[in-house]
Amino acid sequence: MIAVLKHGTTPDQTQHLIDWLKRMNLDVHVSEGQEITILGLIGDTSRVDMELLKSLEIVETVKRVSEPFKQANRKFHPKDTIIEVGNVRIGGGYFAVIAGPCSVESEEQIIEVATAVKESGAEILRGGAFKPRTSPYAFQGMKGEGIKLLLKAKKATGLPIITELMNINDLDLFADVDIIQIGARNMQNFDLLKEIGKSKTPVLLKRGLANTFQELLMSAEYIMSEGNENVILCERGIRTFETYTRNTLDLSAVPALHELSHLPVVIDPSHATGKIKLIPSMAVAATAAGADGIMVEVHNNPACALCDGAQSLTPAQFDDLNRRIRRVREAIL
Amino acid sequence: MIAVLKHGTTPDQTQHLIDWLKRMNLDVHVSEGQEITILGLIGDTSRVDMELLKSLEIVETVKRVSEPFKQANRKFHPKDTIIEVGNVRIGGGYFAVIAGPCSVESEEQIIEVATAVKESGAEILRGGAFKPRTSPYAFQGMKGEGIKLLLKAKKATGLPIITELMNINDLDLFADVDIIQIGARNMQNFDLLKEIGKSKTPVLLKRGLANTFQELLMSAEYIMSEGNENVILCERGIRTFETYTRNTLDLSAVPALHELSHLPVVIDPSHATGKIKLIPSMAVAATAAGADGIMVEVHNNPACALCDGAQSLTPAQFDDLNRRIRRVREAIL
Amino acid sequence: MIAVLKHGTTPDQTQHLIDWLKRMNLDVHVSEGQEITILGLIGDTSRVDMELLKSLEIVETVKRVSEPFKQANRKFHPKDTIIEVGNVRIGGGYFAVIAGPCSVESEEQIIEVATAVKESGAEILRGGAFKPRTSPYAFQGMKGEGIKLLLKAKKATGLPIITELMNINDLDLFADVDIIQIGARNMQNFDLLKEIGKSKTPVLLKRGLANTFQELLMSAEYIMSEGNENVILCERGIRTFETYTRNTLDLSAVPALHELSHLPVVIDPSHATGKIKLIPSMAVAATAAGADGIMVEVHNNPACALCDGAQSLTPAQFDDLNRRIRRVREAIL
Amino acid sequence: MIAVLKHGTTPDQTQHLIDWLKRMNLDVHVSEGQEITILGLIGDTSRVDMELLKSLEIVETVKRVSEPFKQANRKFHPKDTIIEVGNVRIGGGYFAVIAGPCSVESEEQIIEVATAVKESGAEILRGGAFKPRTSPYAFQGMKGEGIKLLLKAKKATGLPIITELMNINDLDLFADVDIIQIGARNMQNFDLLKEIGKSKTPVLLKRGLANTFQELLMSAEYIMSEGNENVILCERGIRTFETYTRNTLDLSAVPALHELSHLPVVIDPSHATGKIKLIPSMAVAATAAGADGIMVEVHNNPACALCDGAQSLTPAQFDDLNRRIRRVREAIL
Repeated sequence: MIAVLKHGTTPDQTQHLIDWLKRMNLDVHVSEGQEITILGLIGDTSRVDMELLKSLEIVETVKRVSEPFKQANRKFHPKDTIIEVGNVRIGGGYFAVIAGPCSVESEEQIIEVATAVKESGAEILRGGAFKPRTSPYAFQGMKGEGIKLLLKAKKATGLPIITELMNINDLDLFADVDIIQIGARNMQNFDLLKEIGKSKTPVLLKRGLANTFQELLMSAEYIMSEGNENVILCERGIRTFETYTRNTLDLSAVPALHELSHLPVVIDPSHATGKIKLIPSMAVAATAAGADGIMVEVHNNPACALCDGAQSLTPAQFDDLNRRIRRVREAIL
Repeated sequence: MIAVLKHGTTPDQTQHLIDWLKRMNLDVHVSEGQEITILGLIGDTSRVDMELLKSLEIVETVKRVSEPFKQANRKFHPKDTIIEVGNVRIGGGYFAVIAGPCSVESEEQIIEVATAVKESGAEILRGGAFKPRTSPYAFQGMKGEGIKLLLKAKKATGLPIITELMNINDLDLFADVDIIQIGARNMQNFDLLKEIGKSKTPVLLKRGLANTFQELLMSAEYIMSEGNENVILCERGIRTFETYTRNTLDLSAVPALHELSHLPVVIDPSHATGKIKLIPSMAVAATAAGADGIMVEVHNNPACALCDGAQSLTPAQFDDLNRRIRRVREAIL
Repeated sequence: MIAVLKHGTTPDQTQHLIDWLKRMNLDVHVSEGQEITILGLIGDTSRVDMELLKSLEIVETVKRVSEPFKQANRKFHPKDTIIEVGNVRIGGGYFAVIAGPCSVESEEQIIEVATAVKESGAEILRGGAFKPRTSPYAFQGMKGEGIKLLLKAKKATGLPIITELMNINDLDLFADVDIIQIGARNMQNFDLLKEIGKSKTPVLLKRGLANTFQELLMSAEYIMSEGNENVILCERGIRTFETYTRNTLDLSAVPALHELSHLPVVIDPSHATGKIKLIPSMAVAATAAGADGIMVEVHNNPACALCDGAQSLTPAQFDDLNRRIRRVREAIL
Repeated sequence: MIAVLKHGTTPDQTQHLIDWLKRMNLDVHVSEGQEITILGLIGDTSRVDMELLKSLEIVETVKRVSEPFKQANRKFHPKDTIIEVGNVRIGGGYFAVIAGPCSVESEEQIIEVATAVKESGAEILRGGAFKPRTSPYAFQGMKGEGIKLLLKAKKATGLPIITELMNINDLDLFADVDIIQIGARNMQNFDLLKEIGKSKTPVLLKRGLANTFQELLMSAEYIMSEGNENVILCERGIRTFETYTRNTLDLSAVPALHELSHLPVVIDPSHATGKIKLIPSMAVAATAAGADGIMVEVHNNPACALCDGAQSLTPAQFDDLNRRIRRVREAIL
């Protein structure tokens, strides 16, 4: 349920109403826009007398919010959320390209790739230190050592870094990580979401292999309900019957999630398609669709990559793609 | 299997080789490009002595084609196929927008919509006369009368027309239709495909609800194997677990089908998403992906449409979308 | 909408009411059970005054039927439908096993398989004469000749026959076929369904690769709406992301369709799984689930079958499976 | 790769070979059957000279194992694995029914349900203490308190208990739990799997919403690779396009997983179908398919259940179902 307050309501009046609502055991989220202020109510709103609330002098209108997600809901928060990492912004008109290798493999590799993508125009560096592998016998990532190397690359290039967290017990290693990624296979690891919600670090939340838009937003809700409102949604392909592509990239996620939520939406065409020949077209299409960011895998030597070589672009290919992305970004503004 | 002939081979030499291959009970398809000529062999190629073939003076190289589709295969036909209807071209660099109502409902409606979309810049008019409805109790279309009205609109505006054929016994009514559409639910109606392959009219073949790229190309192969090479492939969303959208639009179909085949690829974001708010973003994304055409539903009064009103754009909305599409088309060239 | 008539209502009274309803432009379907008679109304029932109808002396109760399928709906027809072919019955407590090769390949083959499955206990013989092949270059079936051979096998063994019809223009060849099969890929070939609805021959309607229970029942509705009420529903696996099996057999179709409809439900575990090692378990599971019939592929020499050899049982394997099926059928009664 | 040792090989000879293989940096798993002993090798087996190995006196044969799962692979371990909890066995001919409420709600509720299902014949009691809820605002379970109540019920009835673990940091609360359940949404929570692999408690591993058989077995492999070989696989429905059922129950999992692996397979028809009317049929079908166990939700007052009421059987319904299950179990032996 939301209560839209009239233009000109004073802070005191607003606070008075908030206190009254809280005494009814409701959580109250305040969204202050230029024009209007919205109070978003979470909890058992069935006991709220809507007519009474509407009749209050400072209340413009009251509406039920049927969607199970509240804090992630655009009705609770009409303005686009803008995530800030260092000098970079994502969302609300700000667009960013995230690039880097699937895994951090060595200091030489990560510095080389970071330098190359920085030069081409990427705003953020990605690299996996803890890798979710389907097989226990596959390379699991450089772990803590990998994060240290990412931080070296950050220092060398100035690029903020994003890397995946799989286990909350490793959180202390992520102190200097700019964006923490929650992988597709952990999108409904509810305990992990609650814990990461207690942190302040921005989170990039990947949609699960077969999770709906609503479930993705409910997982964002888990994070936000614990206090961390800095969530970036990421579509990375869903599982379907088609076997030519690794997954099926669902670009309708861009306008759909922008409609339902105020959180920024980033697209990962690398994991989605799994094939280099399809990535440029999809990255450009995602940009045209209105995505707030694109995340691609780039490796200086894909043939020797320890994982996902078949879907990693070379620095030269990335450079070309980045130009195409910016050109299309221009065309839609 | 394909045999690439050397530059400079004479027509006589080519014909001599073709005759020899035909005596081995193989079908031979000739693809003449500016640089090279490719002979595509269809049939039991296991009996062909590849080494012997390679050793012929006029043969540059011989390769096996593992994909089950041959005539639709880019290896058989490296050049993009360009479909011509009236003055309009689709494919090979030529881009077209197809617009019109889900169903033809009256002369007034179809003339009004045709005029409006023509003015906005659409190249082709669509309209359903024979409607595939899930329910036998729903409006089944104006049938023969609907086609007559489409022809009137064609006469009034000069727009070529595309409309769906569901039953081969109705084919004679389609004599003046420019492009015959085979609907998603008939993509594997093999008898219908074989019959339409005997016609010369260009066919727009919609991907089935849960058919793979390969199955789509095999259905195109059915049509082409009967002699009709004028096939346009159309992605219109596939069936997945997501319920927020009517289907899931699979834009990777654009680069994937362009990689595998020489046939033009058109995207239908209307049936794919089923929601007006998602259509513009997807139409623009499809354009950026490199589609050869976009097909959208436009109705002068969506609230009163006899079908698919929830996904039909008004003429004003279409006008705006067409501009955005052209701008992005520019940006990717 | 259904009107349940009171026990003791006379035929005259019933007819009087039917006439009144028909004057309101409604189709009326009468379902006479031992206890009650139900009038099922199809058409624009929004104009029916429910209160008025309920108030009539002979009317027990009136209810809206929200499902779009009416004639196929159990609310319209509470009693199980029993399909009769020769001495064989399917549905309403009667169970049948259908067995035979994927394709009719020769007189020797079909007579040999028919004799073997008859001896093992099969009630009906299947065999494809018109084959739906994904590739135009694959064996398309013996066609008319194949049907003649099936009829020879019928004559030799007394087994009723079922075979697939793909093109309505071939219907006259099916005059002596006991059950006409509509394949999964033609489940929404609406024109074909309407035509077959004009015939009286029982139809086995296969669920499409990605069609819902509701869509399957609407396709049955297409057939029934033209006058042919003898429809058998068949679940044969749906398309999912799992690649180990050819399709995913959805056995919940048995209780779900029995709940929603009065039509018999048959299971095809051969096309569903595509693997011999999985078929016996699934055939037995289907029987335990309460299916009205099981349809399996049996070939005298699977290694040499012209299609689907990998999923065809040998006569010996079928004999063993049939025993297991009957034992489980006993256990659930 | 597996090396099958000849009948009559002495323990010393076996150990000698194992040591030699370990010096090649391979993990060696020994599977001793009545007839043969199999050494399963895990690691970089490309360096193993197969011919040399085959030539050893005690080696019968050497085969490559192409599947990525090894310890879970039947080729490594031909005999069915039998899991023992208290006096109950699952697998290798032993069948068990697991029943209980979705959540533990109160001492009265869990004791009442446990007593009822025990009397009806259930072998194991289930009950959720930590609940994976899509919404952060939904009842999350009684947690530690819930486990205490389960232990009370165990004491009262003698039934072993199974309950879900979501967070490894809660493991110490599970000291007296007989089987630890890993939920569908955590099937690829790799860190959790590795941790639970270090415990000795049997684990019931649920297949993820859209995970393949192979991925399920790889997740079992994660657990086993850490030392815990007591894994029970559980199919609970996969996500598809069908909306009538909550998920689509994939019963082919029973024969498929029995073919690929030696681990027991249990079916959960409650979460799979989500509808009471479908559960009995599916539970019986699963039994007929050859499942090693069935797990159903039972609540003494479904209408008031804190979760999953719509799919919970009453004790009376469970009693009836249990009889039907045992009757069909008899029929397939």
